Amino acid sequence: MAKEQKPRRPRAETPKGFRDYFGAAVTERNRMLEKIAEIYRLHGFDALETSGVETVEALGKFLPDVDRPNAGVFAWQEEAVPGGGSGDWLALRYDLTAPLARVAAQYRNDLPSPYRRYAMGPVWRNEKPGPGRFRQFYQCDADTVGAASVAADAEIIAMLADALEAAGIARGDYLVRVNNRKVLNGVLEAARVEPGQAADVLRQIDKFDKVGEAGVRELLTTGRTDASGAEIPGVGLEPAQADPVIAFLTSKGDTNDETLSNLRSAVGVSAIGAEGVEELAQIAAMLDATGMDADRVVIDPSVVRGLGYYTGPVFEAELTFEILDDKGRKRQFGSVAGGGRYDDLVERFTGQKVPATGVSIGVDRLLAALREKGLAGAEAQGPVVVTVMDRDRMADYQAMAAELRAAGIRAEVYLGNPKNFGNQLKYADKRGAPVAIIQGGDEAARGVVQVKDLILGAKIAAEASVEEWKSQPAQVEATREALVATVREMLAR
Amino acid sequence: MAKEQKPRRPRAETPKGFRDYFGAAVTERNRMLEKIAEIYRLHGFDALETSGVETVEALGKFLPDVDRPNAGVFAWQEEAVPGGGSGDWLALRYDLTAPLARVAAQYRNDLPSPYRRYAMGPVWRNEKPGPGRFRQFYQCDADTVGAASVAADAEIIAMLADALEAAGIARGDYLVRVNNRKVLNGVLEAARVEPGQAADVLRQIDKFDKVGEAGVRELLTTGRTDASGAEIPGVGLEPAQADPVIAFLTSKGDTNDETLSNLRSAVGVSAIGAEGVEELAQIAAMLDATGMDADRVVIDPSVVRGLGYYTGPVFEAELTFEILDDKGRKRQFGSVAGGGRYDDLVERFTGQKVPATGVSIGVDRLLAALREKGLAGAEAQGPVVVTVMDRDRMADYQAMAAELRAAGIRAEVYLGNPKNFGNQLKYADKRGAPVAIIQGGDEAARGVVQVKDLILGAKIAAEASVEEWKSQPAQVEATREALVATVREMLAR
Repeated sequence: MAKEQKPRRPRAETPKGFRDYFGAAVTERNRMLEKIAEIYRLHGFDALETSGVETVEALGKFLPDVDRPNAGVFAWQEEAVPGGGSGDWLALRYDLTAPLARVAAQYRNDLPSPYRRYAMGPVWRNEKPGPGRFRQFYQCDADTVGAASVAADAEIIAMLADALEAAGIARGDYLVRVNNRKVLNGVLEAARVEPGQAADVLRQIDKFDKVGEAGVRELLTTGRTDASGAEIPGVGLEPAQADPVIAFLTSKGDTNDETLSNLRSAVGVSAIGAEGVEELAQIAAMLDATGMDADRVVIDPSVVRGLGYYTGPVFEAELTFEILDDKGRKRQFGSVAGGGRYDDLVERFTGQKVPATGVSIGVDRLLAALREKGLAGAEAQGPVVVTVMDRDRMADYQAMAAELRAAGIRAEVYLGNPKNFGNQLKYADKRGAPVAIIQGGDEAARGVVQVKDLILGAKIAAEASVEEWKSQPAQVEATREALVATVREMLAR
Repeated sequence: MAKEQKPRRPRAETPKGFRDYFGAAVTERNRMLEKIAEIYRLHGFDALETSGVETVEALGKFLPDVDRPNAGVFAWQEEAVPGGGSGDWLALRYDLTAPLARVAAQYRNDLPSPYRRYAMGPVWRNEKPGPGRFRQFYQCDADTVGAASVAADAEIIAMLADALEAAGIARGDYLVRVNNRKVLNGVLEAARVEPGQAADVLRQIDKFDKVGEAGVRELLTTGRTDASGAEIPGVGLEPAQADPVIAFLTSKGDTNDETLSNLRSAVGVSAIGAEGVEELAQIAAMLDATGMDADRVVIDPSVVRGLGYYTGPVFEAELTFEILDDKGRKRQFGSVAGGGRYDDLVERFTGQKVPATGVSIGVDRLLAALREKGLAGAEAQGPVVVTVMDRDRMADYQAMAAELRAAGIRAEVYLGNPKNFGNQLKYADKRGAPVAIIQGGDEAARGVVQVKDLILGAKIAAEASVEEWKSQPAQVEATREALVATVREMLAR
């Protein structure tokens, strides 16, 4: 006889690459984002919240391919139903800039121009998940659309510094470094780099942090033998051609004025280069006027990340305090935000070039930094747990919890099966409860409650020999009227 | 010669049924939700944020159909890629309860039990959009999983009343009404309604609000002729069978005690009915003990919405103030939240029945109610706009804005092309700016600024004859040092 097959139960699992956030992981992130939003609003930026779903046509970057519609984005085709689905390809947004472009084009007659907006929310990437790499994560952006002036860039740079401090990063623990793509273009012009070589030169410049001045010079000219003995071919520039590039990379001086002067030499007679240096000078002057000193923002030509993507000023915020990496070595925490100017935001919709500049804060990175500094990540304190000794007196226990809450103290009544009192204390422990309230029939008759300090109790249990704790009783009896005052006193310990 | 076809530009449009939220629409909703979350946390509920994407298998309700995978939910199949996509069907969550069921099963060994959690966020429905009906909208839920005691229901009911007040609804403007599915079951038993008739009886009970006591009696027995003359067939109960049902529907007394007494009569000797009434009596006692008076929460057997879905206590929060409907008639604002007990949350994953009870607040409805009461929906005040008279002195203007912000005043520098000063004032108007700052070369030389009251200016322009406004100058000259003080004074008007 064939064995009957049991119906398989569904798996209770998040999809691969997705995750759940519990308790403090949610509230701490929201609190951090709200502090940042406060700064953005103070600067005249307005909130914008678009939906998670866009048409693939509006997202633009990823066009549907009948064989692989899901490359990069999560996409699906709507059914074409009369009066209902349109047959459009829809997709989850993969960043907050593409929806901004759509909004800037869709509402171009209604929005103020320039339009300053901030946006915070999840985005989705259909990529191979990895350790710490998820397919849904938060972004936090602020952009100004329709302002060609570098005053817009300076404003966003200063706002970023303010936002980091509002989030809790102390002055001195971060630095915003500013560069300009136009200066690099001027340097390439001064070095007579041919258009076909530009990408290759950019790639070598990107290695400056790793291989240093001499290394980059080799890579730009005849090539280099790396530590493993491998021959890395050079770009083939003449030594004299490499000079402006090296001058650019090493132009950071002790002051912005010195740096700007070095950059003027590096770009030589290039008009675009001179324009770029002039923009940096204007930004420096505006930052100065708004009280952004060199311990917060500096002109730094070694910022190369993003130079390929942006068209003008570009900047990056780094956290300068040290942490231990996976191998126990000290290293700087590193980048938590970046941005710059990009000038083709709505062109694909309207045919018009519209200048834009913006910043994106790495939400998970910044939150991790706050945890490193002990400014977040502590388990949120659990509620006071009112235990249940007598199932028939639930109303009394609820009244105690209500009184505590009215005094602003987080409190709950144990709602599981009250039979086993040990389970109630185990529950209180799992909840991280600082205090438990106990009132049996005897206490009720006498008009008192037992107030148990669970934090002190745990300490005494762990280190029974320490005398100083023994003097503090872990459990006190209080009159019913003194419940709130007694709990408050215990929480203040 | 064939005319060359221009490449079509992408449409800048939200997908059908989706929308964008601007400015105050975002911040007001977030502020309301944060106030509610504060109350939930005070009651010991922890935040839970799951991702927008779940496997269709975990969502359960909607199984993928090869021909119509998208019915009800937005769903798509992952590519099966070695080391990457799993080939699973994925979908956007359609509510916050299905993800809670998945979480409660997935982490059942780690979560405290009972587990109290709240969740707030967008959900997606693949339904035909209509006026005011969107395919992405917010939900705001709180549930207790693993507590069989009606103390859990009473706690959530009281918490709902507190949450509405925290959101801004005044006492007296709302009422939470509580009923119990078990009482209804007892009534059906007392009325000897056969199982096959139960759904039909429920349907008629649902019409109580519309057709009243006599109408329901007709519908339960021999049928009824409606206002249009149409014959509506009855369920076919004997008149004596209809009695307990009518007694149930009309059992609301002046006090909870009276209502409970009437309900005891209505359920007669039914054991399940008596259990239901006893549960309501316990809930009433607990609400009483926590200070929830009859002006906030009442036992009301006429709450029938959701009785079919829930298994025990069920409740609904209504806003009792009147608004004008589309046709200018007064009507109560109506329901903004509801919930109850449902006892099969994780069974499909684990095979175990786990009791659960919860509440869901209609976020858009509640926000609309706050707007009706004038407690939200006012345009957020725009920033002070520092105008640009002299393009070369951007740093000075930025410094003014920075000073205003340091004093907590929302401020921005005009970042468009400053050539046409009229455009700058038009921009300030579009931004809802209360004040504009003007400093030309002459003022700069004299060390002063012009501070222009745009709100007063608009009033004067609109009603030039009103004398009282003329006495208040719409524009004052202040020393540069007095900028912040002058703006602050003007904003306080």
